Amino acid sequence: MATSLDTILKEIKPLDSSAMAAARSRQNTLTKPHGSLGRLEDLSVQIAGIKGTPTPKLEHKSIIVMAADHGVAAETVSLYPQEVTRQMVLNFLKGGAAINAIAGQIGARVIVVDMGVKGGFQPLPGLLCKMIDFGTQNITQGPAMTREQAINAIQGGIQAIEAEMAKRLDIVGAGDMGIGNTTASSAIFAAMSGKSPKKITGRGTGIGDKQLAHKIKVVERALSLNKPNPKDPLDVLAKVGGFEIGGLVGVILAGAAYRIPVVIDGFISCASALIAVGLSPEVKNYLIASHISAELGHEALLQFLGLNPLLNLSMRLGEGTGAAMGIFLADSATRTLSQMATFAQAGVSEARPMESH
Amino acid sequence: MATSLDTILKEIKPLDSSAMAAARSRQNTLTKPHGSLGRLEDLSVQIAGIKGTPTPKLEHKSIIVMAADHGVAAETVSLYPQEVTRQMVLNFLKGGAAINAIAGQIGARVIVVDMGVKGGFQPLPGLLCKMIDFGTQNITQGPAMTREQAINAIQGGIQAIEAEMAKRLDIVGAGDMGIGNTTASSAIFAAMSGKSPKKITGRGTGIGDKQLAHKIKVVERALSLNKPNPKDPLDVLAKVGGFEIGGLVGVILAGAAYRIPVVIDGFISCASALIAVGLSPEVKNYLIASHISAELGHEALLQFLGLNPLLNLSMRLGEGTGAAMGIFLADSATRTLSQMATFAQAGVSEARPMESH
Repeated sequence: MATSLDTILKEIKPLDSSAMAAARSRQNTLTKPHGSLGRLEDLSVQIAGIKGTPTPKLEHKSIIVMAADHGVAAETVSLYPQEVTRQMVLNFLKGGAAINAIAGQIGARVIVVDMGVKGGFQPLPGLLCKMIDFGTQNITQGPAMTREQAINAIQGGIQAIEAEMAKRLDIVGAGDMGIGNTTASSAIFAAMSGKSPKKITGRGTGIGDKQLAHKIKVVERALSLNKPNPKDPLDVLAKVGGFEIGGLVGVILAGAAYRIPVVIDGFISCASALIAVGLSPEVKNYLIASHISAELGHEALLQFLGLNPLLNLSMRLGEGTGAAMGIFLADSATRTLSQMATFAQAGVSEARPMESH
Repeated sequence: MATSLDTILKEIKPLDSSAMAAARSRQNTLTKPHGSLGRLEDLSVQIAGIKGTPTPKLEHKSIIVMAADHGVAAETVSLYPQEVTRQMVLNFLKGGAAINAIAGQIGARVIVVDMGVKGGFQPLPGLLCKMIDFGTQNITQGPAMTREQAINAIQGGIQAIEAEMAKRLDIVGAGDMGIGNTTASSAIFAAMSGKSPKKITGRGTGIGDKQLAHKIKVVERALSLNKPNPKDPLDVLAKVGGFEIGGLVGVILAGAAYRIPVVIDGFISCASALIAVGLSPEVKNYLIASHISAELGHEALLQFLGLNPLLNLSMRLGEGTGAAMGIFLADSATRTLSQMATFAQAGVSEARPMESH
């Protein structure tokens, strides 16, 4: 049996402040002007705090791509038909997607998790089955899932992390696939923040103006019908979320509990983080925001979470592609911290006292 | 004998537009929404145009770190004493600097070139000697170097690229080391653009307000004394430049001539690009701007060159550290372009025609 959500929530602790102080003071002895590695230095200190050591190493990397279908796809909120979720899962497993190329570049495993793709799959190498149901219900007609299903989805994510830890895991990226999931994510963000769906609902796969206006109405309808309670993140997940979103909530919570940095990706990954932080505010310190995507609403969501993304490359693909790049930067941060020589070791002169002129 | 500057300038040709069109149309058949890899897609198309093939590969990578001393260091424009240039060259060769850690991460060679470090070096493994003189002259008292030295420095850079090409080279990063070189770079930018030194002279290694005010006066004095001619980039390089800056001009020009993408780094690397583009405007298309540094003036310099940096991580170290990260992103761009499956190959449904609502 995997660890329960309740137990995981109890295991989430603050960062290790003495490891952080040691990492910060090591940064100041390395052969470079103080602070000249900019955000990489801060990132290295955060990772030291997460892993509880002044010179953390990020050797074993995984991208967990959670896939599921959405009943709301029936409302034609995407440019692509629903079967693309399933087709892309097969593409991930064959190595033909963007995330395979970038994960290969950084030496990360790609773990694909079926959280609830329509039709299901035969057992396939590389596919982890945590299927809750063949897609959520249509949120314009009722709740996406039951509260029990929401908890099971989160536990599926916890199990995915525990399975990766058994193979060794130093850092994890949170990816997603699911036609219709920007609609669910906009509904989650609107529900949790009280923001107007119009301001935070974007073009997803690239829909036009007419379809966007329709998508906004779909989000509004889902919220007015289901009335998710913003004080109860599990209720929001159940009413307007998705199985892959629940799975990522579990990945994020378990990452924090097991002190593994979690690199979040785009809008869907961030909506999952919003639920996770709602369940345990301490989780925020374990998150690394990889990039700001082109999806409208992502910037506001990052701001709402108080996260500062590392990259801004106008990407909007999901799958964990931005997260994989974030893992690269996290690795740069920890490699410079642990591999660089100090001024003393290298015999390099330190900064001289300021002279007056 | 290496190729002369004149010959290199004649070899710089426009990008291959048919390779670019083929790369762009391949991007639109890959299993992702059109345009969803954002700037990576544009970058892949640029690299296809540089290398003249629709699916370029970036296997062999080098960071060329050009080092030299500056006579203007006598004016106390840096937080560090002049001998740090030499000490850091030894640190690069021993693998203890930030660039060693990040180059190791991306699988790039680090080539250190002595363009004119005070005192010189005994032959050392990994060090290429293209020394022009033991540092430039103090630009507050006369020109940094003669016009002949400027040309020789550029030819040293051309030779460095040709030496790397003999080992195979698919992409190159342009790094620098030289106490005093932000002062020279500010003088170059002010001379070429007519901008006020006050607006584009920054804190370099991290100097305080008083020392910054002094540094601005040093740049002003160098310009009023030497009167570099903005219509003659070689005159600007000779009057207020540096040997490592000249070396990087050669790296950039030779990269363009040999159709090798050149990833530029921070302020010094960009000042070198300004001279190179002044000598041959076509060079601009061969440049990839890796990052915007924390150095005041770098943003304005990138804008003046019309370059859009990929990263903004508040770094200000030089050595090619930002360029190494830019090479990573260029590699992500070409890997996704060449490795991803097409919709047809993967059996993934394409976007459906827009429906009306």
